[in-house]
Amino acid sequence: MIAVLKGGTTAAQKENLIKWLSAQGLTVHVSEGAYKTVLGLVGDTSKIDMDLLAGLEIVDQVTRISEPFKSANRKFHPDDTVVTAKDAKIGGGNFGLIAGPCSVESEEQICTIAAAVKAAGATFLRGGAFKPRTSPYDFQGMGAEGIELLLKAKAATGLPIVTEIMSISHLDLFADVDVIQVGARNMQNFELLKQLGKCDKPILLKRGMSATLKEMLMSAEYIMAGGNEQVILCERGIRSFDPYTRNVLDLAAVPLLKELSHLPVVVDPSHATGAARLVRPMALAAAASGADGLMIEVHNDPMHALCDGAQSVTPDQFAEIAKAVATVRTAL
Amino acid sequence: MIAVLKGGTTAAQKENLIKWLSAQGLTVHVSEGAYKTVLGLVGDTSKIDMDLLAGLEIVDQVTRISEPFKSANRKFHPDDTVVTAKDAKIGGGNFGLIAGPCSVESEEQICTIAAAVKAAGATFLRGGAFKPRTSPYDFQGMGAEGIELLLKAKAATGLPIVTEIMSISHLDLFADVDVIQVGARNMQNFELLKQLGKCDKPILLKRGMSATLKEMLMSAEYIMAGGNEQVILCERGIRSFDPYTRNVLDLAAVPLLKELSHLPVVVDPSHATGAARLVRPMALAAAASGADGLMIEVHNDPMHALCDGAQSVTPDQFAEIAKAVATVRTAL
Amino acid sequence: MIAVLKGGTTAAQKENLIKWLSAQGLTVHVSEGAYKTVLGLVGDTSKIDMDLLAGLEIVDQVTRISEPFKSANRKFHPDDTVVTAKDAKIGGGNFGLIAGPCSVESEEQICTIAAAVKAAGATFLRGGAFKPRTSPYDFQGMGAEGIELLLKAKAATGLPIVTEIMSISHLDLFADVDVIQVGARNMQNFELLKQLGKCDKPILLKRGMSATLKEMLMSAEYIMAGGNEQVILCERGIRSFDPYTRNVLDLAAVPLLKELSHLPVVVDPSHATGAARLVRPMALAAAASGADGLMIEVHNDPMHALCDGAQSVTPDQFAEIAKAVATVRTAL
Amino acid sequence: MIAVLKGGTTAAQKENLIKWLSAQGLTVHVSEGAYKTVLGLVGDTSKIDMDLLAGLEIVDQVTRISEPFKSANRKFHPDDTVVTAKDAKIGGGNFGLIAGPCSVESEEQICTIAAAVKAAGATFLRGGAFKPRTSPYDFQGMGAEGIELLLKAKAATGLPIVTEIMSISHLDLFADVDVIQVGARNMQNFELLKQLGKCDKPILLKRGMSATLKEMLMSAEYIMAGGNEQVILCERGIRSFDPYTRNVLDLAAVPLLKELSHLPVVVDPSHATGAARLVRPMALAAAASGADGLMIEVHNDPMHALCDGAQSVTPDQFAEIAKAVATVRTAL
Repeated sequence: MIAVLKGGTTAAQKENLIKWLSAQGLTVHVSEGAYKTVLGLVGDTSKIDMDLLAGLEIVDQVTRISEPFKSANRKFHPDDTVVTAKDAKIGGGNFGLIAGPCSVESEEQICTIAAAVKAAGATFLRGGAFKPRTSPYDFQGMGAEGIELLLKAKAATGLPIVTEIMSISHLDLFADVDVIQVGARNMQNFELLKQLGKCDKPILLKRGMSATLKEMLMSAEYIMAGGNEQVILCERGIRSFDPYTRNVLDLAAVPLLKELSHLPVVVDPSHATGAARLVRPMALAAAASGADGLMIEVHNDPMHALCDGAQSVTPDQFAEIAKAVATVRTAL
Repeated sequence: MIAVLKGGTTAAQKENLIKWLSAQGLTVHVSEGAYKTVLGLVGDTSKIDMDLLAGLEIVDQVTRISEPFKSANRKFHPDDTVVTAKDAKIGGGNFGLIAGPCSVESEEQICTIAAAVKAAGATFLRGGAFKPRTSPYDFQGMGAEGIELLLKAKAATGLPIVTEIMSISHLDLFADVDVIQVGARNMQNFELLKQLGKCDKPILLKRGMSATLKEMLMSAEYIMAGGNEQVILCERGIRSFDPYTRNVLDLAAVPLLKELSHLPVVVDPSHATGAARLVRPMALAAAASGADGLMIEVHNDPMHALCDGAQSVTPDQFAEIAKAVATVRTAL
Repeated sequence: MIAVLKGGTTAAQKENLIKWLSAQGLTVHVSEGAYKTVLGLVGDTSKIDMDLLAGLEIVDQVTRISEPFKSANRKFHPDDTVVTAKDAKIGGGNFGLIAGPCSVESEEQICTIAAAVKAAGATFLRGGAFKPRTSPYDFQGMGAEGIELLLKAKAATGLPIVTEIMSISHLDLFADVDVIQVGARNMQNFELLKQLGKCDKPILLKRGMSATLKEMLMSAEYIMAGGNEQVILCERGIRSFDPYTRNVLDLAAVPLLKELSHLPVVVDPSHATGAARLVRPMALAAAASGADGLMIEVHNDPMHALCDGAQSVTPDQFAEIAKAVATVRTAL
Repeated sequence: MIAVLKGGTTAAQKENLIKWLSAQGLTVHVSEGAYKTVLGLVGDTSKIDMDLLAGLEIVDQVTRISEPFKSANRKFHPDDTVVTAKDAKIGGGNFGLIAGPCSVESEEQICTIAAAVKAAGATFLRGGAFKPRTSPYDFQGMGAEGIELLLKAKAATGLPIVTEIMSISHLDLFADVDVIQVGARNMQNFELLKQLGKCDKPILLKRGMSATLKEMLMSAEYIMAGGNEQVILCERGIRSFDPYTRNVLDLAAVPLLKELSHLPVVVDPSHATGAARLVRPMALAAAASGADGLMIEVHNDPMHALCDGAQSVTPDQFAEIAKAVATVRTAL
């Protein structure tokens, strides 16, 4: 960490600050410039409150020179992490294709879609049982029953299942779930993350609506610090100013996250765009950008879907997209 | 709700859609324009998925004409809600001054600050026991012990206390807390909101980092739908593109929220700006904009504060700010 | 256009408004709902000030149901526009590969790079002569001399050239330039756009830093309204909150712009990311998303480039990218 | 400027970089840490391309420790600049009240409003003659004739006039204009700024839609570098994600700009919010935050205003706002 002191700082003030920093176990290198003094802080700076330091009268600027995440950091773990669930793998060259409806609605619905997406090449089945809806008056998912139905679809197809958790109090219901999803709205629900860190299942962590890449990696770190290193990162669009799409899909996040971290990165073009007709071009773009997988909403009857029908593709459309994605991946 | 159909929609397609809408209990008014057809949907449109409708091939545009929030809506509750905690009130002309440290650190610290802010005119004491920190390696708060210390400060000063909850599993510890705070990162932790809806304490709901005003009101609605109508809304800055301040304080949210809703609106200039020297001008601006209260971080030794010291003011500075705020409020 | 009136509007107020709207040449369809009245406005609504209408006491909401752009609108011009410059084409299935240095620095530099990018498959040479720099103290480009050198490179390679205009007073210098670029900062310099609308050269219009897609199309409309229909749209990243990249490349803009408009859409991954190592994945993603072309910064000595070296790739890297892009395009 | 080199940088690479930096006239201080090397660069770093340096393979991070603006910098000019136009002053304790219609529409309109706002305490008359409209089909202002009418209103009331320039080719028409306004869309029209830097009139510079404070100050610097130091900065709202208001008024920009620069800072609550009913609370908040002035749209018949009627207040409302603002300023 580097702290730049303002011109006009007195010797006593400098000494005082250096004493305080040293008291926190840091070695301080001082280099005097023409107008400013630069302090180089060596040691465990992760405990220093950067904002506090930056807020001191005599301090002009503070810069952290090492990333605050460790377990998720590629520097300390150069090889790609491969996340495994049943026979399916994501990361390290394994491409994960996660597909299924926004919400589980009935046994017939989920089993039909599961069979269709499996036939089209999906390696995971997704489906919401607990749904985070902006309005308390909207359909909140089938809950425990939805998970039961997912397990039936899993039994029928052999596909590992991915579904979202909204409260740690529901964890028991997830005993046979293969991958637990943390939604964008809970990306910084730190108590939930801590508990999931103690569990032995892969976690699919979605990027918060306005989370920076570092914040996302710090949230992964919350899970990993508890001992669970099976984390999949998911870019799903960020909030921006143009009302024309629901979110802005930030595809540069794919190569950036893979550079910063060894964790696999998947992309959800359905939530990112909120529009079925944009799923294909954005799925292809994600594959071309180097993503380790895709998460796509598929519904056999989007017009009657209980939620997010607008962004679902049909099984036929999904099959075509899966084929085109494979073509792009083979080409590269 | 209004749906505009694309030019070229066939009579059969229109009929089909109208049948589907009617089946959901809506009355449909059709008005044919030169190029487009406009459907007016009357009835309980809160269950219609706007995005689904908008995503249909034949639909050009969908507009909701009634707000999706009810309990929080000023239309159905024209008078200001007054939230009461012990002797203190917020809303309906009552100005709430909430002050205290970011984190509780020790009995001496919290009691000293409590006495000081009370003397300066604070009507509530705030202090964090459970702290949502971006990094799992940062100080996470004193937890249960922190709440114990807050209760001592409450006993000593008589000030009602406001402190943040991060997990519903901690609720028992909040039995003697006067106002429960939901932080920005949990504004859409819907399971937490639902549980708080069943509790009989006022809830201070902070705006999410990139939450729209309607989303914030829908989150209030989650609490109110459970029966708890004592909700205080808190503007605390939104995320934007300029690295120069931590957040952008959106003061127009104050008159807008008060127009849309009868709930009281307070402003947190400390978190919004992240800089102690900006707290005064933004506190004054918030008061001038019509806020029902302020939430200000105060620390007797900001340099040694365990978190967010950079944005804390000293008790003396707070006293001066409180006086200036009172002057502005008297003038208006 | 649809205007929804608030509940409680009196008959006299309604009549008054309808009279005013009729006076502006519109036919008004009234449909009375249980709580609200909806007015459908038919006729030339492009002259109605939506904000004014929305701001009236009795009006709850106003929605425009037809896009405000005409010449750029695919509805009135279903076929793709193909922009031609010398032998090169962009749009309608023709992929344009625009490459070259950020700034022209010397004859040797521009001619060397031009030869290299041509050999690698570039169909246009780009190079800045007038440079929009945030600081007045930064290198502002070689100006007229820079254009001279571009023309030499054009003579040597046969590549049509693309270069940015910053003031209409420089137009004479662009007589032999093939495509005139309008930079992001000038996307709403309407006086410049109007003048370029009178000129007979293709215009490459970059998206403003925080321009919506509709605003971008309205800026294209300024050029087209003057008679110049040869406009190329360029997505180059939008401003967002994450300091980790310079901008967020919004690739969903590609299919969206192509749906809304018949104009060709190219992508600039160099400016969007500001980092040479991200150019390849984002170029591939852009190609996969359906872009009609790419604009890539290439420099033979990025370390000594006078501006934006950080985002330039070397000619060898460019050749590899061009090959990979062709592979993706062939695969799809 | 500080550059942090990555761990693993070889001695030869370091030497090479230091040689290159020295060749550009900088003195380089090297301090070796446990894992990283930090270079302190002393001298005229304003010519170093930070992005280029940051993009080098061996460089981890670059931080500028001195602001890139000079003439606008309070460090080198501690006293407030006072901008003078006729008898009116802004800055250094002088509060400027700029009021008038969005567009000049007729002699009667502008003279009536001018008289009314003068009576209410306005110190400047504003009015648009050249209007930057998103659509080429919208009213573009009366142009030269509009300026003539403004001059008549100036003659009648004695108020100095403020009006926007959209092209340097119109400069002759501004000979008797007192303050030239540069609109948000032209904040980075650098050629225009350079020309205005040679003129001897005050310039009111509006913040771009998504301009950072530093970018805004760099644009002021473009004007000042040309010799014209009479610049007024104007905060007018920035673009954000909530469709509920047109822009987000960033009032913390007021104390921040005044800390960074000696130039006066005014606030435009009309454009920032786009809604007449929000002008009063935001005008009061701006005054309380320490602004040096306000710019308010006033129209005697907002319903028939040719543009932006929705955000205009009536002369009576303006008089009441002016009084309340004075009360707040007196109180503080």
